Amino acid sequence: MERPERYEIRFGGSGGQGIITAARILAEAISEHGGKYVCQSQSYGPEARGGASKADIVFSDEPIDYPKATKPDLLLAMNQTACDTYFSDLKPDGLLVVDSGLVDQVPTRRAVGIPFTDLARKETGKELVANMVALGALTHLINAVSPKNVEKTLMAKVPKGTEELNRKAFRAGYKAAKDVNVSALTGKEARAYDDELV
Amino acid sequence: MERPERYEIRFGGSGGQGIITAARILAEAISEHGGKYVCQSQSYGPEARGGASKADIVFSDEPIDYPKATKPDLLLAMNQTACDTYFSDLKPDGLLVVDSGLVDQVPTRRAVGIPFTDLARKETGKELVANMVALGALTHLINAVSPKNVEKTLMAKVPKGTEELNRKAFRAGYKAAKDVNVSALTGKEARAYDDELV
Repeated sequence: MERPERYEIRFGGSGGQGIITAARILAEAISEHGGKYVCQSQSYGPEARGGASKADIVFSDEPIDYPKATKPDLLLAMNQTACDTYFSDLKPDGLLVVDSGLVDQVPTRRAVGIPFTDLARKETGKELVANMVALGALTHLINAVSPKNVEKTLMAKVPKGTEELNRKAFRAGYKAAKDVNVSALTGKEARAYDDELV
Repeated sequence: MERPERYEIRFGGSGGQGIITAARILAEAISEHGGKYVCQSQSYGPEARGGASKADIVFSDEPIDYPKATKPDLLLAMNQTACDTYFSDLKPDGLLVVDSGLVDQVPTRRAVGIPFTDLARKETGKELVANMVALGALTHLINAVSPKNVEKTLMAKVPKGTEELNRKAFRAGYKAAKDVNVSALTGKEARAYDDELV
């Protein structure tokens, strides 16, 4: 796998969209099943007020000195504000992933738009699990750990009784990302785990 | 309040003790209600395998450059391994807080021992909420945000239907810490919020 040694992901959205939970699950899955060193962090402060929410993951084959994402390889923007705020941090060849139902103005063609919130409502009846739809999509796009293993971590973390709801949302997101022609965007090959959840 | 500009907390325990959840709730409460800049992070890697779990909080009146705890002001050790592993990182005048039912060998007299897990079982019937008992105790000991406000954040974060269980656990921990003569350990004055939850 041609992966840079350090890979940074930023999640941005509004409070209540559950992005910290999604980041935590992905971080644990990458650590446990992807064999990487992983740091997951969130910063709160005046800039994060007004209901804004962000979370970072950094993973690497080597121990991580600085745990914040400074130049994300991937930015997930769950709303327009997050896209506007963090896009300038993205690496020049980084990938922008947006909730296309909530982000109208996408500042680059190098972007994947998936209607996470609409999909959550359509597939499960609950917009609340848009974060899990996004988690599914990121699992595909990042390609550092198999979806089965992320799902395993997910199932162990969600409240009892919500497993099926979360699984459905996760799979919907994974599938939606698979249907995007990412290699045209990234120049990378098809994904190793593409058929695992089919 | 004579608080050093940067205050670091490390949570250590085993996977399943819920310390990352406790750290996340405390971080959000300190940010939202304590008016501080807060970073909350967890690192995963080979050293954290075998079911070990840790989480850091750093808070400050000023923006935080480096989000990991390097010299914690307070170490919460939920088991002996965490105590043994992280004690040497603690600041010379830092405070060690241990689950006294699970940590037999305490390497300093400058320590607060509270049987978090036993209390959780006794007060709620569920050892699972030992993390919330510890959160209550830390809320008292750190004294950066009122227990009512931590409880508010807590109530908004826990799964529906578990509010009462978590509230009970949190209050049991807060009360247990109040009964400890911390000023003898720390030389600091009585706590501003001492009577709030009585």
